Amino acid sequence: MNIKIGDTYSKIFSISTDDIRNFSDITGDKNPIHLNVNYAKNSGFTGPIAHGFLTASIFSKILGNEFPGQGTIYLKQELNFREAVYPNEELIAEILVLDGNNKGKFHLSTIIRSKKEKDKIKITGEAIILYNK
Amino acid sequence: MNIKIGDTYSKIFSISTDDIRNFSDITGDKNPIHLNVNYAKNSGFTGPIAHGFLTASIFSKILGNEFPGQGTIYLKQELNFREAVYPNEELIAEILVLDGNNKGKFHLSTIIRSKKEKDKIKITGEAIILYNK
Repeated sequence: MNIKIGDTYSKIFSISTDDIRNFSDITGDKNPIHLNVNYAKNSGFTGPIAHGFLTASIFSKILGNEFPGQGTIYLKQELNFREAVYPNEELIAEILVLDGNNKGKFHLSTIIRSKKEKDKIKITGEAIILYNK
Repeated sequence: MNIKIGDTYSKIFSISTDDIRNFSDITGDKNPIHLNVNYAKNSGFTGPIAHGFLTASIFSKILGNEFPGQGTIYLKQELNFREAVYPNEELIAEILVLDGNNKGKFHLSTIIRSKKEKDKIKITGEAIILYNK
């Protein structure tokens, strides 16, 4: 897929409790804030929250599979974890092409927020990819 | 665990082929560069490579479980994906506390490189965490 400055792409998704458990197993990240209801509540959340890396991996999925797709080389990702993400919460990932050069290097804005409450900005940041198609 | 400016922490780890397959399943990131030998070779690699987010998730594991450990709130992570990571390659993750204030906000350097070939710098970046203990 061709991409150019100003293009946008968005995708609705959510994280399940199983996703969180599986991610804990694979990565070894067993922080009880992701797994234990009481611990999460005592930490000021309403229940266990998703790992920031798990939620943000939607960008890896989108960039490598959908927008712009196969052939993408991921050079950089900045992630600001602003608000907790809960299981089954409906989220939207939004990508905006900020800049690009004739060597296929693109600068992207990468944002995740609540689908229903648009002012709940979960993750912000920018990415750089290399893509020649 | 108490941490202070100048403290370092390192951890040896590696990514298995199974880790890559499981990460692809959980995240839906099925980019063939991670799964298909021929596709990876045609893309200039010697074989399938690990997802950058999978490799970098070692930081989430370390920060939430080991250094500084439980209670850590992850505020920011910047990731520069500089070199490919192959399955079973011995890696070392290195964290250095760059800065900290009296409200428990710490600025960290976060690096992953080959354990044997120290000049092979795989991922660089900085993180910000909140940690009060």
